Order: sequence, then C-alpha cells, then structure tokens
Amino acid sequence: MIAHPFDQAIALTASGENTFTGATSPAYANMVGPYGGITAATVLNAVLQHPALLGEPVSLTVNFCAAVADGPFEVRAVAARTNRSTQHWTVAITQGGESVVTATVLTAVRRDTWAAVEHTMPEVPAPEDVPLPTARGRVEWINRYEMRFIEGGFPGVWDERDNGHSRTRQWVRDQPPRALDFASLTSMADVFSPRIWHRRARFVPLGTVSMTVYFHASSALLAANGERHLLGQAQGQAFGQGFFDHSAQLWNQDGLLLATSHQVVYYKE
Amino acid sequence: MIAHPFDQAIALTASGENTFTGATSPAYANMVGPYGGITAATVLNAVLQHPALLGEPVSLTVNFCAAVADGPFEVRAVAARTNRSTQHWTVAITQGGESVVTATVLTAVRRDTWAAVEHTMPEVPAPEDVPLPTARGRVEWINRYEMRFIEGGFPGVWDERDNGHSRTRQWVRDQPPRALDFASLTSMADVFSPRIWHRRARFVPLGTVSMTVYFHASSALLAANGERHLLGQAQGQAFGQGFFDHSAQLWNQDGLLLATSHQVVYYKE
Repeated sequence: MIAHPFDQAIALTASGENTFTGATSPAYANMVGPYGGITAATVLNAVLQHPALLGEPVSLTVNFCAAVADGPFEVRAVAARTNRSTQHWTVAITQGGESVVTATVLTAVRRDTWAAVEHTMPEVPAPEDVPLPTARGRVEWINRYEMRFIEGGFPGVWDERDNGHSRTRQWVRDQPPRALDFASLTSMADVFSPRIWHRRARFVPLGTVSMTVYFHASSALLAANGERHLLGQAQGQAFGQGFFDHSAQLWNQDGLLLATSHQVVYYKE
Repeated sequence: MIAHPFDQAIALTASGENTFTGATSPAYANMVGPYGGITAATVLNAVLQHPALLGEPVSLTVNFCAAVADGPFEVRAVAARTNRSTQHWTVAITQGGESVVTATVLTAVRRDTWAAVEHTMPEVPAPEDVPLPTARGRVEWINRYEMRFIEGGFPGVWDERDNGHSRTRQWVRDQPPRALDFASLTSMADVFSPRIWHRRARFVPLGTVSMTVYFHASSALLAANGERHLLGQAQGQAFGQGFFDHSAQLWNQDGLLLATSHQVVYYKE
C-alpha cells in the first residue's frame, strides 16, 4: 500500500523528546520551496504526533520567516503550557540551524455545548455542477487539489483592471481524494490563490508571511466528511504598503463551518 | 507630568538582552487578572522597545495560556529571524517561571504601494451623535475606553433569547483620550465584549485563548489620527464545543482600515 502524497509530504520522524525530522515533497512544490499549506500541516502534524498531546486542535498560527529550501528540515514542538483541558504549543521549523517557520498551536479537550454557525454557507451549485479548470497548475501543488471555481478562479489575463473585489468561492478536495482530517483541513485553509491577483489583474511577486486557522470541528466530524468536497471562500480586507490580508471560511456540504482562517501576504511592486 | 494609565500599564524595564520586566495595572483589571488587550499591547511593546527592532508591526498573535496573576511578570522577546525588510519575533510572558502568554510578532519596513480598502466602513452616525453608556463598567478596564455603541452594546438582560447574530458596531477611543499608536490600536482590537453574550443572552464564563491582529497602517497614519474615535466592528463566525471565534475591523474616520483582528474564545456551560 502506497501512502497518499499528502501523508508522505507531512511525514515526520521523531528525533528527540520534542524534535522531529521531515523533508519537502516535490508533489507539493510551489514557485520557491513548498506550498505554505503543506508546511502549516507539517507544523500541526508535529503536535498531533507528540506523545504529550492533550485534546484536538483549536487554533494554529504559522509564520513563514523565510522560504523553506527543498530538502530536509527539523521541527521542534514544545508544550509551553498544559492546563486541565487546554494545551499551548510553540513550534519552530529550522534548516541548517536557521528559523524558517515559527508557530503556535492551541489544542483542547472539547465537549458538546450550544452551537451555531453564524457565518452561513452561501448558496452555490453542487460540486458536480461546477466544471474543473481545463489547464494543469503551473506549480505542482495546485495539481494536488481538485478545485472547482464558482467565483474568482485563477486570474486569466494580466490587464491591470481593478475587479472591485477579490472574493473567491470554490469547491476543494485533495487530488487524489483523501478522507478529511485536521492536517488536510489546515492545508486546505491555504489553498486560495493570492487575493491581490484577483482584486486587480496585475502580476506581482508575493508570499504569505503569517496564517492563522481556527478549527470548529471535531476529528469525528472531519472523519465523517470522508472525501467529499468542502466549500471554500476567501476575500481580502485591506491592501497597502506591501501587505494585504484575507479572511477565509471552509464549510462541509451540510453547511457546518469546519474552519475559519486569516492570512497576511507580502507583495512587491 | 503624569503618564497616561495606558502607558503606565504597558511600561517595561529592560532586564537583559532579550528580557523585560513589567507589572499588571489595576487601571486595566478584568474579572480575573488584566484585560487581554493590555497584555497584547505589552507583548507588542517589548518588540517596539527592543534595540534590534526592524520596521513597524505587520501582524501579532497572542495566546493566553493561563490567567495573568496581578503583580510582576517577565517578558522575553527574541528576533527569531531578521531578513532584509522583515523580522519575525517570538515573545513569551512568564510568571514564576511558568508560561502565561506565548506570542509571535512580524515587523517590516513598509513602502508605499497600490492600496485599497476592500472591507469598507459601514455608514454610521458620527461619534458625537451616539450616546455614551450611562452605567460605569463592572470591571475596571471598561472605564479606560470611551465606547459609543451603534449596534450590539453590552448585553442588558440575560433572558436566553437567541439574537440571531452577534454583530457589534461601536466608536472607541481611550478614556482619558490618548493619541493613537500601535500599542493602543492593539489593545483596542480586543475591546469587543464576548460575542456569545451578544448572540444569545445567556451568561457563560469564558476567556479569549488566542488573538491575532493585522496592522494596515503606518505609525505616521496612526499619529495623524490623534485622539479621534475609531469605528470598531466585530462578529462571530462559529460557536461550538466550548469555543467560538470572531472577526473584527477597526477603521479611522476617513474610512481607512487600520487593523483587522480575529480571536478564539473558550466558553463553559
């Protein structure tokens, strides 16, 4: 049995009490180094594999300090504070002793309470009624996701028009399909192409510098999703002085909000 | 000349290459320990005071690991990675050697680029046309802010009705007034009372566990604001299994989006 490319990409080997080793995967290559989502999922995986883990993920913030070089890396995950039902982690990825990622993760033992989805899922056509893009992704990680764009697909023409907004709505799942879990949900939270390319059709170099994911689902709910598509939505809030942010949501097909996410992205012009 | 209570509350004294000492302030007391916003501002202040600082704040994530006890604390701020124009910080607050806060901060040298506010300011009455609350805050930090509620003020009656949404819109500035800067903007990003109390009128114990702020303004733009009110908006996205999140925006009166913020909050029932 051959592991799914996602599981291969986030695989870690324990190398000490709080340390793991891993390596970048060509299957998730971005323009420079790996896709940020796979790096975020690797950070989470270090916590999920740690023998001291308490509970399930509630929030994760990953800071991309420098481009991760293709090749091996070390992950250090430390439980900075363990309470009765919550646990705070600090995580770092280093290459050659230099920090390339800093991160914090909160896990908790969660119990059923009153619940509500306030940011409700928009009405959209079913995944099977939304066509697949016809072109193969220009960078390899894009080919690891089945993305069906309802609104705001990959920019086609760089004619510098201002589109007035940067909203994308899309169905997404792993390609090949894979049952949903916390690691893959984390990676999917970074699947949205840079909002500035959608807001105005001008190609500018850029890179995510910080990303946060809040988890609103249990592992059981994620497992029950199986390989079904999630609906993703992302929209920028402010652009200026070389950085913009976006806010994003990921719902399952029952309209449950599984994750909300935010990121801030550097751009150069 | 007596310092503003805000400056007194976030004051730090260098105690080593990367360490500072501070103390909680009764002026910003919450139900247990200090108001989270003042703690977040203290984290940022350690970075702002650090002699190795490069640029101005772009993002900050603060994790509240445990209640900060009234009294002294130590802050450790380390530049994990310094690039040509960006710098990644890890920050921790400890009391008696135990972690009470973990945090990461990104600073950058920012330059003028194309800019746009996509999450535009709602149309609301001017601050002087919105009445002040008549009651004094039940916890002291509330009295450090002049808050004029347009929508979603402090919950009045705990009758367990479901209000259908949790949105608040309010004018806010320091009380007594103080010229805006990055530290006070950070603190204002936490000024919104817990969304679950607004969504349904039921009192439940709770506490913010993680908060992120993205800064969309330069220090010059903040200084130009002076003591004028900002418009704040916050709304929950998902509630369940003991945690909810909210997304928030802070605009100046010219409609420029100065900061966006998100947080995840623990609640008990």
